[in-house]
Amino acid sequence: MKNKLYIVGIGSGDRKSLTLKAIEVIQTCDMIVGYKRYIQYIEDLIEDQEIFSTGMKKEIERCTKALECAREGKKVAMISSGDAGVYGMAGPILQLKAEKFPDVDVEVIPGITAMNLGAAALGAPLMHDTAIISLSNLLTPWETIEKRLEHAAAGDFVIALYNPRSNGRPHLLKRARDIIAKHKQLNTPVGIVKHAGREKEELFLSTLKDFNDEWVDMNSIVIIGNSCSFISNNLFITPRGYHI
Amino acid sequence: MKNKLYIVGIGSGDRKSLTLKAIEVIQTCDMIVGYKRYIQYIEDLIEDQEIFSTGMKKEIERCTKALECAREGKKVAMISSGDAGVYGMAGPILQLKAEKFPDVDVEVIPGITAMNLGAAALGAPLMHDTAIISLSNLLTPWETIEKRLEHAAAGDFVIALYNPRSNGRPHLLKRARDIIAKHKQLNTPVGIVKHAGREKEELFLSTLKDFNDEWVDMNSIVIIGNSCSFISNNLFITPRGYHI
Repeated sequence: MKNKLYIVGIGSGDRKSLTLKAIEVIQTCDMIVGYKRYIQYIEDLIEDQEIFSTGMKKEIERCTKALECAREGKKVAMISSGDAGVYGMAGPILQLKAEKFPDVDVEVIPGITAMNLGAAALGAPLMHDTAIISLSNLLTPWETIEKRLEHAAAGDFVIALYNPRSNGRPHLLKRARDIIAKHKQLNTPVGIVKHAGREKEELFLSTLKDFNDEWVDMNSIVIIGNSCSFISNNLFITPRGYHI
Repeated sequence: MKNKLYIVGIGSGDRKSLTLKAIEVIQTCDMIVGYKRYIQYIEDLIEDQEIFSTGMKKEIERCTKALECAREGKKVAMISSGDAGVYGMAGPILQLKAEKFPDVDVEVIPGITAMNLGAAALGAPLMHDTAIISLSNLLTPWETIEKRLEHAAAGDFVIALYNPRSNGRPHLLKRARDIIAKHKQLNTPVGIVKHAGREKEELFLSTLKDFNDEWVDMNSIVIIGNSCSFISNNLFITPRGYHI
């Protein structure tokens, strides 16, 4: 369909974590819009489609361009890493659509997020109720993040931390850990996955007491267990009441 | 690779929500194990593979059979709907592996869950921190579920409810709603998606005050916004601090 913008989650892992639908949209669109690095991940799927890519922090420019081109009659694919609907580009695009482009048809194609790829690499840590929290305070006040960490830990949720550490805010993960440790046992399992689902994937299994935040970078996902989680044979498992 | 069990998430939507990796494993294994209805979803991908399927509530029997056959030398694919690692079969299989089958190699292949497909259909409700809670009290005491609902609502999380309603426990969704409404405004958006990602998908957009729990069944996912979420032009959006 022409005159349409697809927001395509390309997954956080390698090529094989893409869905059939994502590949179909990329291969049949007229134009691909995205952050440079994400376009590189799918370069071999692109034939003669027009490409519009920009660097980091140009999100709104990219979103506006994608909507303008769809309005002009193109079938546009906006590429988002992971799932476009989880801390991705679906939000700003749909906000822009609501305010300035109500006539443009938009469809979100979900992808596999870092949390799900990371969990699969660690074992089965997400088998019970889970709170997903981003530690990035670029777009969210730290007080809000702290409040959510408190409640997630007090509610005995498994906790998945996105954007757990960057050069600009290396100390936030330690602060998050201290808040969580007020409510969870110090021997609670912690799993860290760098580059989940990619060839250079790296795993670390530890506990709230012992994990080293130097193992963590921007490309990591951190998963902290609930009160029933355990590590056995290098597998991080959160049980769910089955009698084994 | 022989002597290996793959736990394959086939996504919660239609064929196009499968990943390339899931399809590759299904097509190259010797044996497929799963709940009858899930096997039907992928029937056309199966050639001459052996099939072992059973009905509901036979989970542990299926898991044990899958591990036994992998131990005997087969390449086995255990099919799980959605993502095997989210309230799926990855947990019990890895628990069994840890206790009785430490020699069997197991790999989890993640899939797209109902939450992500449902969110994509509704707009962009999961753009900020989200708590995932199952309302099924078959394997979890209701007091634990209530405690998590309290904390998720008090922490201003977006809340995604799995297993929101069944014939055996039709009243739990109302009780969950009442707990959440103690902490969230009554005009907070609520989105309900039945059969997310499938042809018969149905959407309902409403609010905590007005949503009707009769719209919800076992095959639904319910998403409740945070204090910034809004509905505009039939899109459920949770903003994330971008200046639009």
